[in-house]
Amino acid sequence: MSKLLAVGTVAFDAIETPFGKTDKILGGSGTFVGLAASQFGVKTGIVSVVGGDFPKAYLEMMNAKGINTDGVEIVKDGKTFFWSGRYHNDMNSRDTLITELNVLEHFKPVVPKNFKDAEVVMLGNLHPLTQASVLDQMEVKPKLVVLDTMNFWMDIALNDLHQVMKRIDVITINDEEARQLSGEYSLVNAAKKIHDMGPKYVVIKKGEHGALLFNEENMFYAPALPLAEVFDPTGAGDTFAGGFCGFLAKTEDVSFENMKNAIIYGSNLASFCVEKFGTQRMEELTREEVTERLHAFKQLTQFDIEIE
Amino acid sequence: MSKLLAVGTVAFDAIETPFGKTDKILGGSGTFVGLAASQFGVKTGIVSVVGGDFPKAYLEMMNAKGINTDGVEIVKDGKTFFWSGRYHNDMNSRDTLITELNVLEHFKPVVPKNFKDAEVVMLGNLHPLTQASVLDQMEVKPKLVVLDTMNFWMDIALNDLHQVMKRIDVITINDEEARQLSGEYSLVNAAKKIHDMGPKYVVIKKGEHGALLFNEENMFYAPALPLAEVFDPTGAGDTFAGGFCGFLAKTEDVSFENMKNAIIYGSNLASFCVEKFGTQRMEELTREEVTERLHAFKQLTQFDIEIE
Repeated sequence: MSKLLAVGTVAFDAIETPFGKTDKILGGSGTFVGLAASQFGVKTGIVSVVGGDFPKAYLEMMNAKGINTDGVEIVKDGKTFFWSGRYHNDMNSRDTLITELNVLEHFKPVVPKNFKDAEVVMLGNLHPLTQASVLDQMEVKPKLVVLDTMNFWMDIALNDLHQVMKRIDVITINDEEARQLSGEYSLVNAAKKIHDMGPKYVVIKKGEHGALLFNEENMFYAPALPLAEVFDPTGAGDTFAGGFCGFLAKTEDVSFENMKNAIIYGSNLASFCVEKFGTQRMEELTREEVTERLHAFKQLTQFDIEIE
Repeated sequence: MSKLLAVGTVAFDAIETPFGKTDKILGGSGTFVGLAASQFGVKTGIVSVVGGDFPKAYLEMMNAKGINTDGVEIVKDGKTFFWSGRYHNDMNSRDTLITELNVLEHFKPVVPKNFKDAEVVMLGNLHPLTQASVLDQMEVKPKLVVLDTMNFWMDIALNDLHQVMKRIDVITINDEEARQLSGEYSLVNAAKKIHDMGPKYVVIKKGEHGALLFNEENMFYAPALPLAEVFDPTGAGDTFAGGFCGFLAKTEDVSFENMKNAIIYGSNLASFCVEKFGTQRMEELTREEVTERLHAFKQLTQFDIEIE
């Protein structure tokens, strides 16, 4: 079993959906990645930063799930990153109400000594230079580096993004961002161009429409599980990425065929994440529930045409 | 092998896409359904109407593919239904430029004698009363009735639509229309409500995002094949429906498991349809090409997770 190092935010979220609203609750990309990866029992280390206002109980909950938080810096006189958003009725779009960077503004990730040899590295959605600084600290070249990014960094730090993209294996990106980054409307052509920018594997996230994995001439498509109710989409993308990385770290097999399975696991976990507010569903999720839902994914996608 | 009866339009289309534009070319839902079904060698009869301006060569081309056109009425002094549209750059939306109903305005479908016992009936997107009049003419109750409809009929003939829906087995509808018909945003809930209106099977078409099949608690999802270029989406939905019906007519098995295969065949044929203008690609399509692309669909969707 490989070690997984994940850099990302550990934060407060306040969320409004048509189903209700929350006060400040636990959120952040690093948190969701860690919780998803914890399903596989892999040794996961989170690199992040929080303020003195961050409840110790949250870190303890993560530690109890086997998530190493030695790399989560606590700035005693600082405040934790805070995001607040409101989802529209269709749950596919949202307005950001508040973004307080706080301690994240001067975040300099420090990789703990015993994760400098992590085989799998997940670079969460942060400034490309911050992502690069994590790779600079690795003492052993990782087997697999996965990078998540967004349109914001394409707008303000495209050159830095291009630089770090040369050092990674997998990029996860949504469909609109893939189009922006490549200048291509067709996702097939977009993936080809992004591939030429560095990553051998391109994962395009399409929200309720699922996710596509591209590698050279190979394509794989995993649907999102159609759900009667999406309660809160926050963290679904990070949970997807955490499931993807966690499964690959556990199985130590980064072939295209095994990445298909990793994508299914990512979609599986994401389908739970949206069932309750914030991290709640992921905190209580059991291995049995995950296994049961894998059957649903098989039912949903597998067919048996005999090809003559 | 079962007989397939398809009622729908046989028409002229004039199409503009970012790749070019056409004069009046062969189009119509009945035409696309027939061409798709002809891939399976089933005995397909089209019920439709054209004007005296409709080239005999088009009917001959269909006959040469084994499509029976005895049910295509020719109104000598009438003009053929004509639709003209322009696709936007994203190919997912279009503007209708011209709609001339012409002979379609007073269309009274007449089912030819030797198709009154067809086991599979495809009711193309027409007024619900026109669709019902086809069922009234059947002398043997079909094994499977598939109905296609659209928001236009929900707007102007909802009650008639509800009546005919009680007499069918499968409805094909796009996602927005499913939401309109059911009043539910979630497609899972929408399918449940539509199911309660009559059809045991609900097929929700999501264009470039694929198609979902619902039946009681069962769900199946077929992606659209991601393509580098979509040249002309016209007829893709009808080709999908024709492939679905044609495969079920050929295999004479209307179980949920076999409908999964039918959905895959429908998606497969639709992926060819969009590669050239109008019916061109479907006219020249070979069995070998279809088989080869089935492998691509397997590659795209099949995975092999061992569930513990």
